[in-house]
Amino acid sequence: MATKASDTTSGPVIELAEPLLLDSGRTLAGVRVAYETYGSLNADKSNAIVICHALTGDQHVASPHPITGKPGWWIRMVGPGKPIDTDRFFVICANVIGSCMGSSGPASEAEDGRPYGMRFPVITIRDMVRAQVALIDALGIAKLHAVVGGSMGGMQALSWAANFGDRLNAALVIASTARHSAQNIAFHEVGRQAIMADPAWHGGDYYSKDVADPRKTGPESGLAVARMAAHITYLSEQGLTEKFGRRLQDRDAKTFGFDADFQVESYLRHQGLSFTDRFDANSYLYITRAMDYFDLAEEHGGKLADAFAGTKARFCLVSFDTDWLYPTGESRTIAHALNAAGLPVSFVELSAPFGHDSFLLDVPELDRVVAGFLQ
Amino acid sequence: MATKASDTTSGPVIELAEPLLLDSGRTLAGVRVAYETYGSLNADKSNAIVICHALTGDQHVASPHPITGKPGWWIRMVGPGKPIDTDRFFVICANVIGSCMGSSGPASEAEDGRPYGMRFPVITIRDMVRAQVALIDALGIAKLHAVVGGSMGGMQALSWAANFGDRLNAALVIASTARHSAQNIAFHEVGRQAIMADPAWHGGDYYSKDVADPRKTGPESGLAVARMAAHITYLSEQGLTEKFGRRLQDRDAKTFGFDADFQVESYLRHQGLSFTDRFDANSYLYITRAMDYFDLAEEHGGKLADAFAGTKARFCLVSFDTDWLYPTGESRTIAHALNAAGLPVSFVELSAPFGHDSFLLDVPELDRVVAGFLQ
Repeated sequence: MATKASDTTSGPVIELAEPLLLDSGRTLAGVRVAYETYGSLNADKSNAIVICHALTGDQHVASPHPITGKPGWWIRMVGPGKPIDTDRFFVICANVIGSCMGSSGPASEAEDGRPYGMRFPVITIRDMVRAQVALIDALGIAKLHAVVGGSMGGMQALSWAANFGDRLNAALVIASTARHSAQNIAFHEVGRQAIMADPAWHGGDYYSKDVADPRKTGPESGLAVARMAAHITYLSEQGLTEKFGRRLQDRDAKTFGFDADFQVESYLRHQGLSFTDRFDANSYLYITRAMDYFDLAEEHGGKLADAFAGTKARFCLVSFDTDWLYPTGESRTIAHALNAAGLPVSFVELSAPFGHDSFLLDVPELDRVVAGFLQ
Repeated sequence: MATKASDTTSGPVIELAEPLLLDSGRTLAGVRVAYETYGSLNADKSNAIVICHALTGDQHVASPHPITGKPGWWIRMVGPGKPIDTDRFFVICANVIGSCMGSSGPASEAEDGRPYGMRFPVITIRDMVRAQVALIDALGIAKLHAVVGGSMGGMQALSWAANFGDRLNAALVIASTARHSAQNIAFHEVGRQAIMADPAWHGGDYYSKDVADPRKTGPESGLAVARMAAHITYLSEQGLTEKFGRRLQDRDAKTFGFDADFQVESYLRHQGLSFTDRFDANSYLYITRAMDYFDLAEEHGGKLADAFAGTKARFCLVSFDTDWLYPTGESRTIAHALNAAGLPVSFVELSAPFGHDSFLLDVPELDRVVAGFLQ
């Protein structure tokens, strides 16, 4: 796994000239930010859109994933003639710091030449955004047409508006929240405990190049369990019932054993195992921590409306009726705060059967909302 | 942990004279059933109530737990003058087979003198009930006044009515379901994978008397993670927010580390760790499997109403509005089937903030419903 960060980056990477001052008070020097772009920046640099990715996402929005070879995670939304039209917009997506797809994270080399592991500083959503601001600075872009994100990407879009409000004209926040609830934290804590309980975690110091397959040296079992637990929260009960119900997996009767009798078991096991091929367990710890720490109101004196005092951006909020991870009430809270701040906001709850994952899936109404807002 | 089953049983245990024929087709000989009773059986043996316990429950309904020393798990409901009034009723609660509190389970000795481990047969809810029927046979009780249970206990009460319908006059089913949904199975599968991923599980063969503290030889870490994940499903989002919100644990500010900064993290970790003191990981595997296999309609030709063809019992179904594990719709499905079968049924959804765990907690309206139904 040690090699993931460096081996698997196919796109550009910049190293920030200045150290990042983090919310923790620590500074991080030599920060690398790996990113992808789609489309062309126009002459007055006014057509740039930053897309922010979710917990286990990456910068490969609309181009194949370098490890899995799968298509980009938002090809239905981003491309020529798509709702986020790369014939018109210059789309930028950066791997968040703390992650493992080329940006600085726990698998990166520290100054002593060894991977950081748990010596990497705990970061926040705002720290992730700071790295992205430095990236658009480096690209010479003063103001973005929009920042767009779903789930943790939506948290970043909110953080952009709250902390760098003069750097964007619009924020599109999908299936997200202004703060993590107790239940959100609880599910993440289960995942972290699953990873840290795995003896192969070794206090985060599991990176080694001295084995045949470096991807198989870490707490793969714990990470798979963490992914399985999280994955359930991304789907709706209704969606799981429609997709799997109690159907058996390649068998006519229960086996009265502990193999994956049910399709939903087989599916979850596959989700867990395949995740470990492309993700670093320590990154999972750091990014979930950043999400759990996210509380935009607290960051701005306790009142959410005050978080938006420094921006004139217009907002679009989208929630999904079957999303129980960040239910519609969370978006409504944001809408109320934006109203109180006197900012233009449109807010829509869409009906879709897929739960939280709806923002990634076939919801034509979402396409129309996104295209309309970015006009 | 090997000694849990035998050391910790304080009440009576019977060994069944006949082998149990199980749903798997296997037979289990020498089955032991540990149980507790409260109150006195009357002369015509007409005042007996069987209470069925939940996944991690036990027979110690209204008397202290022999390991933890904590009061019985339903003392608010069972006792002299309580809704299930032991001045009037003879209450019986048996540890389910597959469990670890004295009834036969994976920690029990097989015929070769070694613990079964994963050689224990996979059992079903109906198999658990078969052992209880054998127990009341042994006690000379022909017909129960009622069978009562919450959660998995409710599944057993339904199974009593469906399979031994002439042995009970009434069934009280609280916060339960007639079948496990895909989401229910998914959460259980996460727990099983957490246990089986723990290297200390050793394929279930972790029982050893050759260590100082036999309770610390098994997959405690995996079991704790399983318990944490399950525990979230027992509580409502609202209840977690009210109880914990984003409050910090014994600190004024986030530590920017991976300790339990938030109260909800500390609480969950405690729930996980303390559970391993009193429960056997293999039992967790077997009992969750039994619950996932539970589908009362499938067991009776595919139509739920047909499951109740052999009984004249009256029913009471109770659900809770914040229970998202077995939501009200599951009880409604059962009520419709009982209506279709022409059986008397009362069905009430109670309002309580505690989620699934409401059946164990302070819900005075539940007390009234239970007392009224058992008149």
